[in-house]
Amino acid sequence: MPTDIAHHPDRLLPADPTTRAVARRLLEHTQDLPIISPHGHVDPRLLLDNQPFPDPTQLLISPDHYVTRLMHANGVDQGQLRVGGSTDASAREAWRLFCSHWNDFDGTASGYWLREEFSTVFGVDDASINTENADAIYDQLTERIAREDMRPRALFERFNIEVLATTDDPVDDLEAHRLLRDDPTFTGRVLPTFRPDAYVTLGPQFADRVQSLLAAAGISGTDFASYLGALQSRRQYFVDHGAVSADHGALTPRTLRMDPAEAQRLFAKGLAGTATPEEARAFEAHMLYQMARMSTEDGLVMTIHPGVHRNTHPDTLRRFGPDTGHDIPFGVDYSTGLRHILEDFGTTPGFHLIPFTIDETVFSREIAPLAGFYPSVFIGAPWWFLDAPDAMNRFREAVTETAGFTRGSGFIDDTRAFCSIPARHDASRRVDAGYLARLVSEHRLNEDRAVEIAIDLVDGSPRRAFKL
Amino acid sequence: MPTDIAHHPDRLLPADPTTRAVARRLLEHTQDLPIISPHGHVDPRLLLDNQPFPDPTQLLISPDHYVTRLMHANGVDQGQLRVGGSTDASAREAWRLFCSHWNDFDGTASGYWLREEFSTVFGVDDASINTENADAIYDQLTERIAREDMRPRALFERFNIEVLATTDDPVDDLEAHRLLRDDPTFTGRVLPTFRPDAYVTLGPQFADRVQSLLAAAGISGTDFASYLGALQSRRQYFVDHGAVSADHGALTPRTLRMDPAEAQRLFAKGLAGTATPEEARAFEAHMLYQMARMSTEDGLVMTIHPGVHRNTHPDTLRRFGPDTGHDIPFGVDYSTGLRHILEDFGTTPGFHLIPFTIDETVFSREIAPLAGFYPSVFIGAPWWFLDAPDAMNRFREAVTETAGFTRGSGFIDDTRAFCSIPARHDASRRVDAGYLARLVSEHRLNEDRAVEIAIDLVDGSPRRAFKL
Amino acid sequence: MPTDIAHHPDRLLPADPTTRAVARRLLEHTQDLPIISPHGHVDPRLLLDNQPFPDPTQLLISPDHYVTRLMHANGVDQGQLRVGGSTDASAREAWRLFCSHWNDFDGTASGYWLREEFSTVFGVDDASINTENADAIYDQLTERIAREDMRPRALFERFNIEVLATTDDPVDDLEAHRLLRDDPTFTGRVLPTFRPDAYVTLGPQFADRVQSLLAAAGISGTDFASYLGALQSRRQYFVDHGAVSADHGALTPRTLRMDPAEAQRLFAKGLAGTATPEEARAFEAHMLYQMARMSTEDGLVMTIHPGVHRNTHPDTLRRFGPDTGHDIPFGVDYSTGLRHILEDFGTTPGFHLIPFTIDETVFSREIAPLAGFYPSVFIGAPWWFLDAPDAMNRFREAVTETAGFTRGSGFIDDTRAFCSIPARHDASRRVDAGYLARLVSEHRLNEDRAVEIAIDLVDGSPRRAFKL
Repeated sequence: MPTDIAHHPDRLLPADPTTRAVARRLLEHTQDLPIISPHGHVDPRLLLDNQPFPDPTQLLISPDHYVTRLMHANGVDQGQLRVGGSTDASAREAWRLFCSHWNDFDGTASGYWLREEFSTVFGVDDASINTENADAIYDQLTERIAREDMRPRALFERFNIEVLATTDDPVDDLEAHRLLRDDPTFTGRVLPTFRPDAYVTLGPQFADRVQSLLAAAGISGTDFASYLGALQSRRQYFVDHGAVSADHGALTPRTLRMDPAEAQRLFAKGLAGTATPEEARAFEAHMLYQMARMSTEDGLVMTIHPGVHRNTHPDTLRRFGPDTGHDIPFGVDYSTGLRHILEDFGTTPGFHLIPFTIDETVFSREIAPLAGFYPSVFIGAPWWFLDAPDAMNRFREAVTETAGFTRGSGFIDDTRAFCSIPARHDASRRVDAGYLARLVSEHRLNEDRAVEIAIDLVDGSPRRAFKL
Repeated sequence: MPTDIAHHPDRLLPADPTTRAVARRLLEHTQDLPIISPHGHVDPRLLLDNQPFPDPTQLLISPDHYVTRLMHANGVDQGQLRVGGSTDASAREAWRLFCSHWNDFDGTASGYWLREEFSTVFGVDDASINTENADAIYDQLTERIAREDMRPRALFERFNIEVLATTDDPVDDLEAHRLLRDDPTFTGRVLPTFRPDAYVTLGPQFADRVQSLLAAAGISGTDFASYLGALQSRRQYFVDHGAVSADHGALTPRTLRMDPAEAQRLFAKGLAGTATPEEARAFEAHMLYQMARMSTEDGLVMTIHPGVHRNTHPDTLRRFGPDTGHDIPFGVDYSTGLRHILEDFGTTPGFHLIPFTIDETVFSREIAPLAGFYPSVFIGAPWWFLDAPDAMNRFREAVTETAGFTRGSGFIDDTRAFCSIPARHDASRRVDAGYLARLVSEHRLNEDRAVEIAIDLVDGSPRRAFKL
Repeated sequence: MPTDIAHHPDRLLPADPTTRAVARRLLEHTQDLPIISPHGHVDPRLLLDNQPFPDPTQLLISPDHYVTRLMHANGVDQGQLRVGGSTDASAREAWRLFCSHWNDFDGTASGYWLREEFSTVFGVDDASINTENADAIYDQLTERIAREDMRPRALFERFNIEVLATTDDPVDDLEAHRLLRDDPTFTGRVLPTFRPDAYVTLGPQFADRVQSLLAAAGISGTDFASYLGALQSRRQYFVDHGAVSADHGALTPRTLRMDPAEAQRLFAKGLAGTATPEEARAFEAHMLYQMARMSTEDGLVMTIHPGVHRNTHPDTLRRFGPDTGHDIPFGVDYSTGLRHILEDFGTTPGFHLIPFTIDETVFSREIAPLAGFYPSVFIGAPWWFLDAPDAMNRFREAVTETAGFTRGSGFIDDTRAFCSIPARHDASRRVDAGYLARLVSEHRLNEDRAVEIAIDLVDGSPRRAFKL
């Protein structure tokens, strides 16, 4: 028997012996399937440049807001973790701090992934992590990440990643993607994703952004129609560079059909910086509608991630920048919010809409009923704070009885932490094996079908939902 | 050991062996109890006419929006399923489509009921359902439903149904119910239910409906008082024909006490078609209040089913009519919404109010606390999308610790699929046996009491809540 | 093997044998730890006077709205239970009623605590409670509570209570606390808690309350600044008498930064009784903000308990007074509501904010994310209707994966039922042992760490969160 829990073959599987035995058998069928990662935040240059990872702190701590936020909650200044480029502490000092806070991660999803990474990717015994061993582990990691077989492309292969999608700015020239695709020495499939949030949200920078968007699209007009044309053109540019989806981090899922004259009026006020908050929200809701409409034309799968107050702590934002752990979810109403796009495009052939949520209440109440009728709606996998073993199991329990197993997005790692990708997908496969095993134990599903479903959740679902 | 899961004696019971053994013993006490179905949508004429069921497609697919919605989500045009009278495909072709999509129902509540129906009611081996066997099963079902012992009344008896309530229009003359009651060859108890939604909701047809309501009641005035009188009169007509409850599918649970003059003003605007949306909502909230008031007088149990956007997809509504799978739930606020009727009638002797929900969050937060204080409030059983094994278990976990076992409505099948009634009640009894068995295993309840409770949930609860 | 369930050593532990064995071992480490109760409603005079408890009805039924509400729901008039000083029935008659309704408590948290109290504190065999034995048990309890070793101070010692906080009015002179502290024969630690709700909520009595507040503080001005000064002075008085926290039962968690002139304007309208409902809500939101600001200065831990419509049934309020079982929760939005105080004080050293909720949806969606970033935010333990075994387990499942084990308040009994304190803390320890045991069984946590965590949840969490 293994003594460390990161390698335990039964980790995350239900304790009941009968159920666990079924889960083990199911897992055998999915454990070695390639990883399909159709939405995430890995920088394509990581694979293009294929440089050794920097120091352990820069690799595992500073840029991972899942990690730094919890240490911050437990009293650590993020400057000491070198967040946002801070040099308040050395990389080694930051690492010692992390090790001294390792126990704070017990029971968390972040802790689970980190332990798996340490154990599986870096060969560090997870039971050894503590203040005393901090320096030794730092040295061990430093040695390890200098090795050729620890470079990003080698790991991409070792991780068995078939598809990896990045998230990109609409004005990005996608050069990294082009070079990667044209590189005969790299055979992985790395896809860009169109993420227009900054260009469809009214605010002080809106006029500048519209300017750069029009410039990138080579469009000269300055009215709403030109703006739409520029967005359409940049989407097509992404399609031409392999993109399969457009991602939208709207504040709420509200969508709004709108008269072109009214849209023009709000657009002009947005440019002038004179839109009221209500007008800004209406404009943004209309832009979600427009994005859906464009998806019906260019075929980009529409993913939507609403319901989060971003960068809630002004002082942290000022000191360390955005995405530093203080985004806080709130309740969403998909049922009312999506009305306009579902009325108009809900059964449009080829339209795919994937709603994600951190508000668990909408899984059984709204998302499963929507995906149980609208062929365009695919259930977004548990996202962010919900991308955790128990939450993933609650997700399956919440959606399956209404929508079955065929209407999901497949697992989405949504991560910028490249080395955590296998641990996350593995966790998802384990949780699904456990869930399916329970259905088998309760005589609600035959094991033969459970095997087919387990494979389909890993392989078929993302291909169908993301048109891969 | 049975090889098919539909007949497995332990289906839906918890996997843990100790808990399962307790659940089995509890189930023995409830498995053969008669079915009490105090709310549903079976047409009374089905039993009055006692004709053989039509073809398998018409029996099991076309009218069941639980079934057709999920096939629609998986890419099937509802016209191909003969929904809403469509003849785009033959019954046999529709059946083949269904069989080819059978796997889409894995893990769903609909799939569970269908499998039970196939297996228990029609003798079809559920493991045999697939594209290849579609025609053979169609023929087998066709042969089977032609048999005398498969007519509705024979099944009513075989299903061991003691009470079956239907849902009826306020202007219905209830002739079918009268004839059934007077038929000496039929001894089942079939009750009408007063469902006034269409007559208390402002909209283009409101004036016509008020007209027909006044006509049915034989009342000549046209003011709000006459309208109330007509509703009261029709309710009494239902009471006289055996009704025990009035059902309300309001958009929200908001109730509103209102000055008669203001009610008259809104009523007049409703008739004239000039009410604003806010006025319409206020009128409807007041009508819920009036319905509660009338219930305190005529004794009809008030059931309420809010929180659903109905017929959300215009094109589907136009092509196939209402109730075709695209109703989508949203969040409700019972706590604030019911204030006025609970302030005024919450402790009125004989007043029974049963709130149902598809918003699971209100079970522990609002409904259990309400039913844990107000003697008038009975907890509505899991409804619609929540009428599924895992959701029913979550329901028990959500309400029991606050409100115990005595304050519930009993299981409600709410179905128009007559042949699914035994499967649904059986599922509920199994889930409750599993839940109670867990309490016994965790030494929170003695098994003797668990037996009494299991029986009471099936037998006592619906009788108390629905005054049967 | 014990025959009654109240004494069963495995009560509340998971049924799976492997998991249960781990849970048992964990429980051994926490079962005998002292009780820390940093928030509750026991009257300090109970311990000061140290008189024998009155009759069993007055001890266990009449003042406990958890108990009387459920009997009321099941048809018992609260007057018959001597609620609110009613003498409609004798204490013995009320007791008989209770015994005849004992089964209504099956499966409830209240029933669990009562059974434990009967069994553990009073030596009454819980299996014997029924109508027939009502008088005998009444007599047995009467005899028992007359004994010296059943006086409050003896029980305080037997219950192994290390800290007990009460809840007190801002103008209270805290004499009972002072006398207790100065009493050399009592060594327990009993702390007051500052609860200013009545003094920060606009309503008919606001002017009078401000008057008494200013008087208590010895402040002569009557403007907003004087009022703030009086609150600040009374808080300091509480700090000087050992208080560690201030508790706020706001209607919603909304907080509002406000210009002093505007605050003065609303305050004046509040005194004059002319504030609109919107103005009243804004003032109350600002006062929450002010309370947070004062907490950053005087160090009182800020606890907040929003989301409850209080005293919803007017007739019951009139007959029996407040806190008689008809408070009903509704949904809250902590994420938006706390913005202003977290923006300004979220990382202020020494500021502690503990949000409690009866809306379970905010545990995973809002509270865990907040506590997973803000060092000031500690997760409030399950409160009121959620202070129950299954709900406590759902709580752990909802918050741990995001926030771990270090960010909680520790268990809060929040009770006025002194004799139920051990049963409640014991239940919490059992549920946590079961939860941790599951993580161990699923190889997500080593058992050694689980032991440390189990102890820390009981011992470390409340000390850290409440600065004890």
